Amino acid sequence: MALIVQKYGGTSVGTTDRIKNVARRVAKFKAQGHDLVVVLSAMSGETNRLIALAKDIQANPDPRELDVIVSTGEQVTIGLLAMALKELGIEAKSYTGAQVKILTDSMHTKARIQSIDDAAMRADLNAGRVVIVAGFQGVDAEGNITTLGRGGSDTSGVALAAALKADECQIYTDVDGVYTTDPRVVPEAKKLKTITFEEMLEMASLGSKVLQIRSVEFAGKYNVKLRVLSSFQEEGEGTLITFEEDPNMEKPVVSGIAFNRDEARINVIGVPDKPGIAYQILGPVADANIDVDMIIQNVGQDGTTDFSFTVPKGEFARTIKVLEGVQAHVGGKSVNGDDKICKVSIVGVGMRSHVGVASTMFRTLAEEGINIQMISTSEIKISVIVDEKYLELAVRVLHRAFGLDQVK
Amino acid sequence: MALIVQKYGGTSVGTTDRIKNVARRVAKFKAQGHDLVVVLSAMSGETNRLIALAKDIQANPDPRELDVIVSTGEQVTIGLLAMALKELGIEAKSYTGAQVKILTDSMHTKARIQSIDDAAMRADLNAGRVVIVAGFQGVDAEGNITTLGRGGSDTSGVALAAALKADECQIYTDVDGVYTTDPRVVPEAKKLKTITFEEMLEMASLGSKVLQIRSVEFAGKYNVKLRVLSSFQEEGEGTLITFEEDPNMEKPVVSGIAFNRDEARINVIGVPDKPGIAYQILGPVADANIDVDMIIQNVGQDGTTDFSFTVPKGEFARTIKVLEGVQAHVGGKSVNGDDKICKVSIVGVGMRSHVGVASTMFRTLAEEGINIQMISTSEIKISVIVDEKYLELAVRVLHRAFGLDQVK
Repeated sequence: MALIVQKYGGTSVGTTDRIKNVARRVAKFKAQGHDLVVVLSAMSGETNRLIALAKDIQANPDPRELDVIVSTGEQVTIGLLAMALKELGIEAKSYTGAQVKILTDSMHTKARIQSIDDAAMRADLNAGRVVIVAGFQGVDAEGNITTLGRGGSDTSGVALAAALKADECQIYTDVDGVYTTDPRVVPEAKKLKTITFEEMLEMASLGSKVLQIRSVEFAGKYNVKLRVLSSFQEEGEGTLITFEEDPNMEKPVVSGIAFNRDEARINVIGVPDKPGIAYQILGPVADANIDVDMIIQNVGQDGTTDFSFTVPKGEFARTIKVLEGVQAHVGGKSVNGDDKICKVSIVGVGMRSHVGVASTMFRTLAEEGINIQMISTSEIKISVIVDEKYLELAVRVLHRAFGLDQVK
Repeated sequence: MALIVQKYGGTSVGTTDRIKNVARRVAKFKAQGHDLVVVLSAMSGETNRLIALAKDIQANPDPRELDVIVSTGEQVTIGLLAMALKELGIEAKSYTGAQVKILTDSMHTKARIQSIDDAAMRADLNAGRVVIVAGFQGVDAEGNITTLGRGGSDTSGVALAAALKADECQIYTDVDGVYTTDPRVVPEAKKLKTITFEEMLEMASLGSKVLQIRSVEFAGKYNVKLRVLSSFQEEGEGTLITFEEDPNMEKPVVSGIAFNRDEARINVIGVPDKPGIAYQILGPVADANIDVDMIIQNVGQDGTTDFSFTVPKGEFARTIKVLEGVQAHVGGKSVNGDDKICKVSIVGVGMRSHVGVASTMFRTLAEEGINIQMISTSEIKISVIVDEKYLELAVRVLHRAFGLDQVK
């Protein structure tokens, strides 16, 4: 008998029939003797509907009032699931974030959890009840409703598991685990039984949208055993996210291939190679609220250097425009770029202790005639920017080159 | 400068455009220097949508969880109105029932308000903010979300006005006041400038659905100045509901004509004229959850009497069925009835001190050949049951007979 926190996302509770399915799954775990705390997202589409209502009133909705409005989405699903469980003869009780209470700071629409009061939930669990908690929301010290930002329900689940010292936090989603890469691109992609937190963080930040990145950080920080499972399959153990490499386990050097189509490359050519130049270029970009991903600056020649970075494809034109103003100011020669690119990355804690991973990657791409435009590395990741037309090919050949189609 | 509580119903906030209209109206009052507390219903249709979701899960939804779900309707509108006011440059802050807090008992779906904490609202009003409160909802001593039942937003408005000792509670609705009768039946119907609480209670209980009856009782009990106004007309003073007859004012004897089409008449013929017979007949009807309105039992003859009462038309067949079992038991001769009837009532505190009101009513109906099937009276009301085909005619001739088309 264990204490399990289960989190179900928006598609898992998208209709009343699906909510009934979730209730049956929860009932199955309950019948096995487990204590259960269930964290829910809003029904899929509901949060967007509420945001659209708000934007119909204010183009930039007031953050406090937006939280009042969007937090109702989860409040509806927790009530519905509690009813569905009662209909199965199982005692259950729903809690809003404020009722728990999940105390956050006052940063509306992107609040951070500060503490969780577990007293009421424990009393319910001891009385044999299933506890149902609205994800994504909390309450600040003044009693204002706050939300954790998009995907915040994962974070709610992990934070509740940490507060309750749960044996496991299960994240139910529309995929049945973490794969070596996207199976839609490489049909031979294999589901990983385990992945380390560090790898998961890199995979998540690189566009494998299985888990919200903050929830993974949170799980690592508070030592929460985290598992990703499918809410649409009855069987399967999903992927367990682990804290450390198992020294006894023979793991492949590379755990997965991540990629991101939504990148555009910007180059500022021939800028003076002097301190402060990066800030002078990126400051105005940040001021324009444009997210920057990879940043590369090479050693300069002749007192000048080329400065490159990537932004989301949709921000390409706007970034060029921002930089046209900056270019003269910083003394650059020209600004150009390319929005027909993509990013492909290999991720694995194994590469720390293995030399030659980078050269295998670059050779594999070269053999297919794929030109590498930019390279960026971290301790457990190597990312390259290539022409977007090569994305599928690059992912496929790297998947094979690192033996990921052989993962058991 | 006054403290005004304004309550807007579901049709008044049914779209984002209408919410913007409410914001402009509130802004106008604010510009006149008034302090404002605004109480809102859910957008029209939203409560029904949420109840339908719940019923899709449980035919008889769990009351605690139903309150969790339906209370989100008002939570959305308060956020939207706060945004709309900010968009007009007016500081505003929304409160759920729990945030205020509006403390109720724990009778989910029909809770009663026990106390209201006015501290936070006062602080906001003192800081120049418009306070916006979710109607229809509260919180019990254990922190569970409760609702006051259908139409409870009127009661929220009046209770807040009482707690804040507001100068006036304005109920905005889709009619512009209380009329001498329904203008759709009698085009000459006049809007009343004032009506007493007692008259309003009788009018409300007789089917003039302008105000929820509990809110009127509440206003009377706590001495709240209550005014009914149109949310769709810019001008007009609506109808003020007063506590006492103004002795200096020449008021008509009858203030209004109310009617109810939704009545069916049941007769149990020839029952023994002995103690307990009313309970033996009506007990099974109440047990079957059938609402009974008028009840008439005449003096018996030869040891037997006829017992008559009215029920909603939709319950007619079921009531007959229930009574067929009872009839043999109580020794009645037969059970019959008529679902083609209606109730017409004259209401007015003036009739207390005026003899001859009843005879004027009966003579007026007789002159039109309208047969009276049942009569029931209270201190300020006389109701008759007539054939439903005479409803419009009866209301029209009574309206004229009591000079209501001359009201100024």
